[in-house]
Amino acid sequence: MPHIQLPEGMPGILGPMAFSPETSKPLNELAEVLLRGPNTLTPGERETIATYVSSENDCFFCQTIHGAVAAHHLGNNEGLVKSIKKDFEAAPVSDKLKALLAIAGKVQKGGKNVTGHDIARARKHGATDKEIHDTVLIASAFCMYNRYVDGLATLAPDDPEIYRRNGKRLAEQGYIESTADQLQKQYV
Amino acid sequence: MPHIQLPEGMPGILGPMAFSPETSKPLNELAEVLLRGPNTLTPGERETIATYVSSENDCFFCQTIHGAVAAHHLGNNEGLVKSIKKDFEAAPVSDKLKALLAIAGKVQKGGKNVTGHDIARARKHGATDKEIHDTVLIASAFCMYNRYVDGLATLAPDDPEIYRRNGKRLAEQGYIESTADQLQKQYV
Repeated sequence: MPHIQLPEGMPGILGPMAFSPETSKPLNELAEVLLRGPNTLTPGERETIATYVSSENDCFFCQTIHGAVAAHHLGNNEGLVKSIKKDFEAAPVSDKLKALLAIAGKVQKGGKNVTGHDIARARKHGATDKEIHDTVLIASAFCMYNRYVDGLATLAPDDPEIYRRNGKRLAEQGYIESTADQLQKQYV
Repeated sequence: MPHIQLPEGMPGILGPMAFSPETSKPLNELAEVLLRGPNTLTPGERETIATYVSSENDCFFCQTIHGAVAAHHLGNNEGLVKSIKKDFEAAPVSDKLKALLAIAGKVQKGGKNVTGHDIARARKHGATDKEIHDTVLIASAFCMYNRYVDGLATLAPDDPEIYRRNGKRLAEQGYIESTADQLQKQYV
């Protein structure tokens, strides 16, 4: 049961977002620009970073829904997402993405863990300053979203099909429009 | 030295905010609504929660600037802010604020640490669902801001006077206007 009285039937972050529309606006805008704005990192790569950080934070809802978004962007490759969460260094992804995931993992434990060595590794594999900046901010932002979802003890459905369906919708429509749609639908 | 090339002469979060205006917009809007929007928690109480979490995350820039904002709101009481960071349970603040700070401290370590007991304690001292929600989100958000500031190894000035001056300005003008002013000033 959630720690506070949230609108019923809304999984994960949607409950608190419906409870507090004034904060959900910037929260959704941040997700939209970070994960889907113009960028040399693909949406699939950025969702992978978000999923990995959520997995490290042990947030079931976030790692499952963003894992579904990532899988959709990566040609419905759920196995790839699973292998990245398990051991990204051994997963079949680019050296640049591995280096960025390593930075994200350091940020998850605390910002000061990121070293010059981590940054040099990312640069060596072609990461730009903007890509490093965005990786640090995505990892930081998911340390927020994950705590928001779990700190209020929100409910998360078990059925993987629900995440697949919503992951596809988020991947195609984006965070702002999709969330508005979903919040409205639940109230009708 | 910061991990990436940031505009010079901008302390803490202002460097990455100038580097990435498209993400600084929702980041500032979130701070504005969370810390200064209409609320039964005073801006001083909310800035105190932000300062305490930043202190637990060992983020020098954030705990010092938000500590200065909090002190300004609390009648320029820097001693009170210091005593809250050191041991809020022994500090001369309300039982409600102590219970909310306890929740914030749990969130800082990870959302799942918040227990029914923590929530019951806050409710016993009069905390509403919205106050509990906002405490969890402020604590979560500062786990983001702190990691953003330290994950990029941004520079922070030592001089306490700089924080007092900027804390006063942030307390009076707010995050959106004040940040825009500061970013512009540095470029002139």
